[in-house]
Amino acid sequence: MNIQSILTNEQLYPYLLKARYGIEKESQRVTTEGDLVTTDYPQKLGNRSYHPYIQTDFAETQMELVTPVTDNISDLFRWLAAIHDTVYRSMEPNEMLWPLSMPPALPKTEEDIVIAKLDNFEDVLYRRYLAKTYGRRKQMVSGIHFNFEFDDEMIQKMFELQEEYENYDQFKTEVYLKVARNYLHYRWLTTYFFGASPLSNPRYFNGYKHPTEPVRSIRNSEYGYKNLEDVKVTYRSVKEYVADIQQMVEEGKLSEEKEFYAAVRLRGGESVADLADKPIRYIELRNIDLDPYQPYGIGQKEVEFLHLFMLFLLWTDEKAEPDEWVEQGEQMNNFVALESPLAQTVYYDQAKSLIVAMRDFVEQIALPVSTEILDRLEEMLEDPKQTLAGRVYLDAQKRTQKELGKQEGLSYYEKAWQAPYQLAGFTNMELSTQIFMFDAIQKGFDIEVLDEQDQFLELNAQDHTEYVKNGNMTSKDTYITPLIMENKTVTKKLLHRTGFRVPQGKEFTSEKAANGSYEEFRDKSIVVKPKSTNFGLGITVFEEGPSKEDYEKAINTAFQEDGSVLIEDFIPGTEYRFFVIGDEVKAILLRVPANVIGDGKQSIQELVAQKNSDPLRGENHRTPLEKIQLGASEELVLHQQGYTFDSVPDQGETVYLRDNSNVSTGGDSFDMTDEFSEDYKQLAVQVAQTLGATICGVDIIIPDIAAPASAVDAYGIIEANFNPMMHMHCYPYRGKGRRLTMDILRLLYPDFVK
Amino acid sequence: MNIQSILTNEQLYPYLLKARYGIEKESQRVTTEGDLVTTDYPQKLGNRSYHPYIQTDFAETQMELVTPVTDNISDLFRWLAAIHDTVYRSMEPNEMLWPLSMPPALPKTEEDIVIAKLDNFEDVLYRRYLAKTYGRRKQMVSGIHFNFEFDDEMIQKMFELQEEYENYDQFKTEVYLKVARNYLHYRWLTTYFFGASPLSNPRYFNGYKHPTEPVRSIRNSEYGYKNLEDVKVTYRSVKEYVADIQQMVEEGKLSEEKEFYAAVRLRGGESVADLADKPIRYIELRNIDLDPYQPYGIGQKEVEFLHLFMLFLLWTDEKAEPDEWVEQGEQMNNFVALESPLAQTVYYDQAKSLIVAMRDFVEQIALPVSTEILDRLEEMLEDPKQTLAGRVYLDAQKRTQKELGKQEGLSYYEKAWQAPYQLAGFTNMELSTQIFMFDAIQKGFDIEVLDEQDQFLELNAQDHTEYVKNGNMTSKDTYITPLIMENKTVTKKLLHRTGFRVPQGKEFTSEKAANGSYEEFRDKSIVVKPKSTNFGLGITVFEEGPSKEDYEKAINTAFQEDGSVLIEDFIPGTEYRFFVIGDEVKAILLRVPANVIGDGKQSIQELVAQKNSDPLRGENHRTPLEKIQLGASEELVLHQQGYTFDSVPDQGETVYLRDNSNVSTGGDSFDMTDEFSEDYKQLAVQVAQTLGATICGVDIIIPDIAAPASAVDAYGIIEANFNPMMHMHCYPYRGKGRRLTMDILRLLYPDFVK
Repeated sequence: MNIQSILTNEQLYPYLLKARYGIEKESQRVTTEGDLVTTDYPQKLGNRSYHPYIQTDFAETQMELVTPVTDNISDLFRWLAAIHDTVYRSMEPNEMLWPLSMPPALPKTEEDIVIAKLDNFEDVLYRRYLAKTYGRRKQMVSGIHFNFEFDDEMIQKMFELQEEYENYDQFKTEVYLKVARNYLHYRWLTTYFFGASPLSNPRYFNGYKHPTEPVRSIRNSEYGYKNLEDVKVTYRSVKEYVADIQQMVEEGKLSEEKEFYAAVRLRGGESVADLADKPIRYIELRNIDLDPYQPYGIGQKEVEFLHLFMLFLLWTDEKAEPDEWVEQGEQMNNFVALESPLAQTVYYDQAKSLIVAMRDFVEQIALPVSTEILDRLEEMLEDPKQTLAGRVYLDAQKRTQKELGKQEGLSYYEKAWQAPYQLAGFTNMELSTQIFMFDAIQKGFDIEVLDEQDQFLELNAQDHTEYVKNGNMTSKDTYITPLIMENKTVTKKLLHRTGFRVPQGKEFTSEKAANGSYEEFRDKSIVVKPKSTNFGLGITVFEEGPSKEDYEKAINTAFQEDGSVLIEDFIPGTEYRFFVIGDEVKAILLRVPANVIGDGKQSIQELVAQKNSDPLRGENHRTPLEKIQLGASEELVLHQQGYTFDSVPDQGETVYLRDNSNVSTGGDSFDMTDEFSEDYKQLAVQVAQTLGATICGVDIIIPDIAAPASAVDAYGIIEANFNPMMHMHCYPYRGKGRRLTMDILRLLYPDFVK
Repeated sequence: MNIQSILTNEQLYPYLLKARYGIEKESQRVTTEGDLVTTDYPQKLGNRSYHPYIQTDFAETQMELVTPVTDNISDLFRWLAAIHDTVYRSMEPNEMLWPLSMPPALPKTEEDIVIAKLDNFEDVLYRRYLAKTYGRRKQMVSGIHFNFEFDDEMIQKMFELQEEYENYDQFKTEVYLKVARNYLHYRWLTTYFFGASPLSNPRYFNGYKHPTEPVRSIRNSEYGYKNLEDVKVTYRSVKEYVADIQQMVEEGKLSEEKEFYAAVRLRGGESVADLADKPIRYIELRNIDLDPYQPYGIGQKEVEFLHLFMLFLLWTDEKAEPDEWVEQGEQMNNFVALESPLAQTVYYDQAKSLIVAMRDFVEQIALPVSTEILDRLEEMLEDPKQTLAGRVYLDAQKRTQKELGKQEGLSYYEKAWQAPYQLAGFTNMELSTQIFMFDAIQKGFDIEVLDEQDQFLELNAQDHTEYVKNGNMTSKDTYITPLIMENKTVTKKLLHRTGFRVPQGKEFTSEKAANGSYEEFRDKSIVVKPKSTNFGLGITVFEEGPSKEDYEKAINTAFQEDGSVLIEDFIPGTEYRFFVIGDEVKAILLRVPANVIGDGKQSIQELVAQKNSDPLRGENHRTPLEKIQLGASEELVLHQQGYTFDSVPDQGETVYLRDNSNVSTGGDSFDMTDEFSEDYKQLAVQVAQTLGATICGVDIIIPDIAAPASAVDAYGIIEANFNPMMHMHCYPYRGKGRRLTMDILRLLYPDFVK
């Protein structure tokens, strides 16, 4: 099989840079002082027995973060970011993740290293066995497992272009076997460039044999966490690989298959035995040290290199019998791992020619990758100080390894807490969905983003699937209910008929007809609004009868949002948003229309700019509050008060720029949940039930919240919203946040989210 | 109480012409030959034991049509129209309604008049009693009961403006009592103008005492269907009215309260006794003869007059002691009823001055009614030939009464069958909703149109409410399901993952990016379509790789419908629409793209105009098919075939104007339900179930319907629709109609619609 002629075939071209990726990353929990924590696994996280993204490794302090399998590198890093964000903000406020592969200072007594308190007793027994066999300290090292799968279409095209193999599965297995052996042979190269465990804390080895000088990678050397000498497994063929592992287990040299700690594992199904009748599906590279200069322990460039390296290893012929080829690699790797981090490697010439070969390879298959990666490798080869090991060593010299770990760790910790409402990796989604995803990741839902732009998620847990849009559109509401709420005429009819107080009004379908009815409304308090609107757009309120000019302007504004416009009684009082889930009001919010407070100097326009500079204010529902706009609606509202954008309000004077109080038009939000008595909450629940809604936001005007809801004119129901923004309740301008996103998860999975 | 000063108070002005109306109308079923039918109550109609709109009166042949209470006259007539349409098209194809109050020729033997076969045995017993007391023939007369209720705000304003009564309920009762007594006094006026039963069929009286000459109204005379002489009830006060009726029942002079056949009934709650503790809520005028010249037995002008008359009777003082006042009215009415239909009435002077008084009244309270009504009354007063009785009499002279009844009846019958897909009264609603309402009225649902423009209905039956929009959006689907279907990316992901064959593709959010990907698609069969679209707008198909120009045009067209555009594999074959309800495919439709067939002479534009002239083709889903458009999409499709709108196709050549086959863009529809084997139906049901849908339209491309669905490439799922048009299945271009609307009703009320 001439692999090089196959790989250069243009049919393969679209698939070479496609692949599937997954990362498992271990990290020790430490305090913000850099000391190993003594706390248990964070309680806020869902049960680690089933958690798809957040597990524990050997010790109770050793988090294991697992990404889902992704189709591209950018998604891989989005998930790494999101899972890290969730872990950081689910731990105690003074806890963070240790960014280095080598652990922080360990307890004096080995028994003080607490084995992970897992539910499954077999898992605990396994860890006890490991503690006994290798010692607890050795287990405290952390790293990254990188799972890599070629695009299946690429392997299929390759299969079609060769003649040696008749069986596709066999061919596929051979592809991965070759890459695995070549990786085992050449992995000293990754150890040279990305090895990042030059130093250990004195108590790590605690009397065991250990390197006496700084090295490139303790973890990848003979002193690292590896199987005992008598464990030997061949990569000659899958059959022999499986047989060897099974024999090791039978002979008791391994307690279980998963104790086989090779730098590369061949992966098919769930267990090693599955490889007997299934092809290799992907390979797991287990030798990656944590890069302390990257927030997630590995950089995007390193992953890009690994992908390129996998292709190169597929392209490059093996130059010895398989076992010998692998054994040579073992030795070279150990040698490189134990070199001084600042020394030129003894394999400098080989490395140099490998980089040349990679350049040549990239050129021959015209791979559209930036040569920057290879340029960088060359620099690192020429200057060992630029390798990761070199940098870590030098940095630790400057400020001690603890200080290095603490400072780098703190910078990631601070980033995670900087905008605690956001979910890193998914900040382009609406804020409510970000919060919802955070909670879902925290509790251990298996999540798929079905359509990012449309805020469309799939949740899986307990063998049950739910689909969620915008964080609050679910299967728990029927189709007709939002249609009822969307239609204000129908909503009002149903509520009025059931006996709720709703403003009465008239509907117009032409601007002319609406303008013609001016006489009817000239002396009334009215609201002019589009029949269907979200976010309060196009609404104008006249507390006293409008002038003809303002009336017509308001009509015009409303018709720009919808073909039907309602003119309704204006019910005086304050409007509150009641967020109903099931038969409970979970949050009540007072929203104050967009406003500025004068200082006697700045114009309204300037005051708005000042208020908008608050980082909590953003656009398009990506922040808890929205920026105040300076549009036609604001102009009209100011005009009614005799102001323009250039007016300068007095010191302390509050000037409102909107009549509607929606947060989405720049309003402020105040949590009032605990200020209301039960009767108003019951009222809101009854409104929701009348409309058949499980999840909805009911807007109620109440002149006096101290008066009972049964009093005359105690309230007026304005409308019910089928897509109520949750984030403004979760992160109000003032007052206690209400975690509605978690309530929705609980509604969908009552037994899963307690 | 100075009622006149109260009624002229401007506060009342907005309410005077507001009222609530309801009509009950009896009609005999006859054959299209004008003979009384011998068939039973139409089987297609829901059970008359609970039917809110369609009942039977005394005889099995005597339909009683009951409108809901409406807030305005126009709605009253819409419901009359809709109920009539439903009745006509639910009877045997050769049956219609007899338009006259006096019945058609009756059977020789009285026993051949079949008493209504009601489920409730008490109802049957009551009719047997009536047959015995009054004779069966007498019962065969028909008329209209007109229920009238003043606007409640009007009576409240009146109450506030007077000082005589302290109790509102009492005041309200007195208002109606006065109107009732005045109506009983002056009703001879309506008998003069609108009496319409001058002649009887000889067998109607069959030996009983009867008028020997033509009169104005047999039905309103002493020969009409009225209580026996010894039944006397006063209208002095409600208390006495109730007591009198109860006494008559106790003494056996009436079998039940409802046997009290006065020209005016006072109505409060369900039974007469309810008036003891509730005010009169409305009055029922029972003396209206059927107007054979009106399709629904009464004209809008007559109702407008009755409303004006009610106000006038409230305004006009009584001029004698109550019983005497009523008794005078009885006598005058009987006298007028028995006058010759062509004679000037003996009360000409009184009538003249009443019309003057009404003119004066209209002027004094500045009532915005057209004086046309009063002008018309004056003409009828001057010329008895113009009264209804005069017209019916003269017409019957010309062509016999049977011929008159038959011809007028046939004209209404033909109108009802002219566009059998429409529902008269509601033709401005979408056709699917019209068909749905027809079925719901037929089966006896209590229906409220919550929002006409939005096709929003409420159904009530069996103490259970359902809301329905567009005839197919119901509580049986969850909120998330249509959101899944609306998002084609999500739909495809879920279907592909479950193993269905779906076209693969790419999504673009900018025109530039989409245009930039031309190379990828230049040699492929593709469909370019907006991510969200209804009715197939913005879709372009390229069966062979597109030219760059056409590709960019298609991209541009698609982006005009949505901000996201999909380019997908084009799967060759024919597209079918599978309509799924629950776990069944209820209909399968083949839609053929808008097309014309050439005649070698006319241009495409002319051929389109010709095809569009078919009355089955309309616009905006008000007809079974839509007119073919001549827009940018059509132009592009023709251009791809080398045509313009002015090209002249050869004789017999089919030219397609669209690539998409939607009926809404002018396509033709063919029912194929019985052509498919079970496996394709199961496939469609499984697709619906995968998306969680109860009601949906699945579009599947199938190259060969004879091949099994399990064959390789047997099908491709295009999309699923959450608002599939039902009317195109109910009334296809060719093939059997499928009554999906009834299936939806059955889904919502399985026990009610069998």
